[in-house]
Amino acid sequence: MDGRNIIGSEYIETANRPFRAINPNTGLPLEGEFYPANSNDVDAALKLANTAFRTYKNLHKDEKAAFLRAIGEEIIAAGDTLIQRACEETGLPAARIIGERGRTVTQLNMFADVVEEGSWVEAIIDPALPERQPAPRPDLRRMLVPIGPVVVFGASNFPLAFSVAGGDTASALAAGCPVIVKAHSAHPGTSSIVASAIVKAAQKTGMPEGVFSILFDSAYQIGEALVKHPLTKSVAFTGSFKGGMALNRFASERRVPIPVFAEMSSINPVILLPEALEERAEQIAADYAASITLGAGQFCTNPGLLLCVRSEALETFKSALSKLIEGSPSATMLTSGICDNYCSLSDKILSQKDIKLLAQSKTVNTEAQNQAAAMLAEVPASVFLESEIFREEVFGPWSLLVVADNINQLEEVLEAVGGQLTVSLISGEKGVNGYESLVSKATDIAGRLLMNGVPTGVEVCHAMQHGGPFPSTTDSRFTSVGATAIRRFVRPVCYQGWQADMLPDELKDGNPLNIWRLNDKKWTKE
Amino acid sequence: MDGRNIIGSEYIETANRPFRAINPNTGLPLEGEFYPANSNDVDAALKLANTAFRTYKNLHKDEKAAFLRAIGEEIIAAGDTLIQRACEETGLPAARIIGERGRTVTQLNMFADVVEEGSWVEAIIDPALPERQPAPRPDLRRMLVPIGPVVVFGASNFPLAFSVAGGDTASALAAGCPVIVKAHSAHPGTSSIVASAIVKAAQKTGMPEGVFSILFDSAYQIGEALVKHPLTKSVAFTGSFKGGMALNRFASERRVPIPVFAEMSSINPVILLPEALEERAEQIAADYAASITLGAGQFCTNPGLLLCVRSEALETFKSALSKLIEGSPSATMLTSGICDNYCSLSDKILSQKDIKLLAQSKTVNTEAQNQAAAMLAEVPASVFLESEIFREEVFGPWSLLVVADNINQLEEVLEAVGGQLTVSLISGEKGVNGYESLVSKATDIAGRLLMNGVPTGVEVCHAMQHGGPFPSTTDSRFTSVGATAIRRFVRPVCYQGWQADMLPDELKDGNPLNIWRLNDKKWTKE
Repeated sequence: MDGRNIIGSEYIETANRPFRAINPNTGLPLEGEFYPANSNDVDAALKLANTAFRTYKNLHKDEKAAFLRAIGEEIIAAGDTLIQRACEETGLPAARIIGERGRTVTQLNMFADVVEEGSWVEAIIDPALPERQPAPRPDLRRMLVPIGPVVVFGASNFPLAFSVAGGDTASALAAGCPVIVKAHSAHPGTSSIVASAIVKAAQKTGMPEGVFSILFDSAYQIGEALVKHPLTKSVAFTGSFKGGMALNRFASERRVPIPVFAEMSSINPVILLPEALEERAEQIAADYAASITLGAGQFCTNPGLLLCVRSEALETFKSALSKLIEGSPSATMLTSGICDNYCSLSDKILSQKDIKLLAQSKTVNTEAQNQAAAMLAEVPASVFLESEIFREEVFGPWSLLVVADNINQLEEVLEAVGGQLTVSLISGEKGVNGYESLVSKATDIAGRLLMNGVPTGVEVCHAMQHGGPFPSTTDSRFTSVGATAIRRFVRPVCYQGWQADMLPDELKDGNPLNIWRLNDKKWTKE
Repeated sequence: MDGRNIIGSEYIETANRPFRAINPNTGLPLEGEFYPANSNDVDAALKLANTAFRTYKNLHKDEKAAFLRAIGEEIIAAGDTLIQRACEETGLPAARIIGERGRTVTQLNMFADVVEEGSWVEAIIDPALPERQPAPRPDLRRMLVPIGPVVVFGASNFPLAFSVAGGDTASALAAGCPVIVKAHSAHPGTSSIVASAIVKAAQKTGMPEGVFSILFDSAYQIGEALVKHPLTKSVAFTGSFKGGMALNRFASERRVPIPVFAEMSSINPVILLPEALEERAEQIAADYAASITLGAGQFCTNPGLLLCVRSEALETFKSALSKLIEGSPSATMLTSGICDNYCSLSDKILSQKDIKLLAQSKTVNTEAQNQAAAMLAEVPASVFLESEIFREEVFGPWSLLVVADNINQLEEVLEAVGGQLTVSLISGEKGVNGYESLVSKATDIAGRLLMNGVPTGVEVCHAMQHGGPFPSTTDSRFTSVGATAIRRFVRPVCYQGWQADMLPDELKDGNPLNIWRLNDKKWTKE
């Protein structure tokens, strides 16, 4: 593990005062010093990335794919050192970190598959119509091309899968864009180990110098400088609403504004339909107790809001869920800041009128620091509708049960909560028949609509959408998980009237890359 | 022709002082008074649109397509009244307006085709993997859904094709979004006639009240209020850099920011490769003289910059193009404001050191007002690189020839000009072989790359990309022309774990709509 910034393949020490990572379980500093970057490093990394872009974007697709796969291999090769350091820096258990490493490698390999397969460029061909009246149509061919250097911010809650070699980096590299990572200050050691794996992979597969760089900072200046640098073309961020909006403002105030995809804030409403509670209240309680407390509730898809209609079956559900929450032990949060926020925001909400704490973890680990007790609170829908405070994301093992008098009032609650990454519908045997209006309103606010499942656990596949209306993200038209996450970092270019042999391979006659193309309005490999 | 605002199917007169359209040929007011809307009208139009959205988004695709086709039919049914009024309000000749009407109807019909065909929703299906280890994968299905009410700003230079029933309106309605148009104050009568056509079409095809509204204003307040209204979900604009950036700022400063697609400013560099000038200087001059002066140069794709390398053949080209520019008569500009800007900006640029006016229209129509003379100026590349003033868009029949000492310097010029809707390459028989670096740099800044053609004349088809890097548009990842323009107004939704019969038809098993879907990673109609 190295505490220096990496620009291309060079490890660079700065004169800035180094910082250390803190073990959230002990509250004590861990070994290893990390050197905050300075503005010269930002400039050097972007300039090198911009030079690398000229070569990298034109590499054969198989070369980019090989790079992505090599990153995964080098991450695995980092072995237990990586797992142990990630556990120490995040307080997350080894099983979770090992699982997350698997997800990270799977994600890199999925993007390698996407790049090798090649159809992601969305090649569209409209052949010339030389006989058309009143004027002939020229030959028009369109494909997606990379936009240039992308700045990726590491996330606190996914030290591997949404950080240095996570989904943002993987999709940007897959698109053909160099990446500069701003390491998250809570897990610099983990970041350094993964960054070294990427540098090794880049060297082994002959990537241009500067295709990847990583900079450290214990404060916010370097992040701001990265977003404001004129050579930065796009930004990806997963984190708080405040952080995402600050980056978005920096980006929009540039002389040349750039897009920011920030995944920020979601309370992921779960609609418990009356029939569902009548049919299987205890099973639902068990599923949701597990989802609420998973990873100390530190997921962007944590079910923070349970919407239901007053009924007898609801009492059964409340009692079952309360018991399970009480039985869930406290857990270590990622950082003391996150833990303080969890405690103060839950306190603030619980101090409101007409809200009731139904249950909290009875077992609190007194041996470890930064403990979050799981909590379940209840508020009537009429009270919920009166104050925006209940709509705030409480990042942690918290869920708020909102009890409506009837389905109409439940719909009102849904309309009030704003944009969400997910909305879950828990239905009975009759499904959502008769709930068309509710489903329509749920669709309006959600990126992903689940039926009888839990929102935690985001699949990495082609059909995934991890991005919903504001404030859950800055742009609901994009996703940060799944194959189409690549679209954040590309733009279409149309070639008009080109001789076929001068076109990029993706658009040539005869389809030399054998990719799916929309040729004369038909999807074909011809 | 009616001078009142239309909200849904109601014609509403306000107490505001009415304004009149001006005939740019005479400088005199035309018949008909138009009533600026007020903030109550904005609110009423958005509320009605939002109610209409609940119904409209769920209509069968064939119903939406029928509505789009009916709009085209009603526009044709408006007959010569529309053509004549548009000519009077814009100073454009009848042949051009008739052509533009054809384009507008074609565009509506193309989006009707797109909607009927149905594959635009990009259905992606990842089947469940119940046996997967360590955990099963649920069934995941993704499609595009409309985002809600869209505000469309009419453009001065396309009174039909980019105004009330133009590409923005057609693509938003096709997506399933209600539209509120802010009519351009230069052609309110044309706007009113087209708006009435849309209202009739909506009534004939049984569309929900509020699927379309139009508001007038001779100033900027109503535009601002429309963008800032909480129910507005997206904005489409074609016009000046200043106007587009103002709307973009309003949108980003909202409590809930919304995307703005503004097509703003482009000087559309044309690279005249040395071989091309050697082989056919006079032919190129003829093609470009026509493109520069077409429609008094009032196109966003007007070739405002001709880049070339000093040579003997260049002298032949200059002399041929100069003669043709001198022979082009002056033409009436759209408004006195546009004409004033053209004169003052061209004066300002021509007053710079080391720039030379090569040619201008010898024949100036003294019978008509607001005349723009076509102009061709020349500046050495070294001078061009020194000042940003040469990169400004001179909206009108103007082109600046930039003469480089060699190809490297020409590449420098290309790097300096910033994002563009188009870059054209005029090549010789050997094509662009040997110009890889130049082509790469051209690709970095352009939405559309033309080979041996003129950038004016934007095809309406699937492969079109009319949108380039900033400042040509606010977001290079989208287009305002062509089938994919619909993507500006939709976002993906992922359905997880839904029983197949409860899914939207687009995602159902058996593909009842017979659309192209990416099913288990293969494009298929199965």
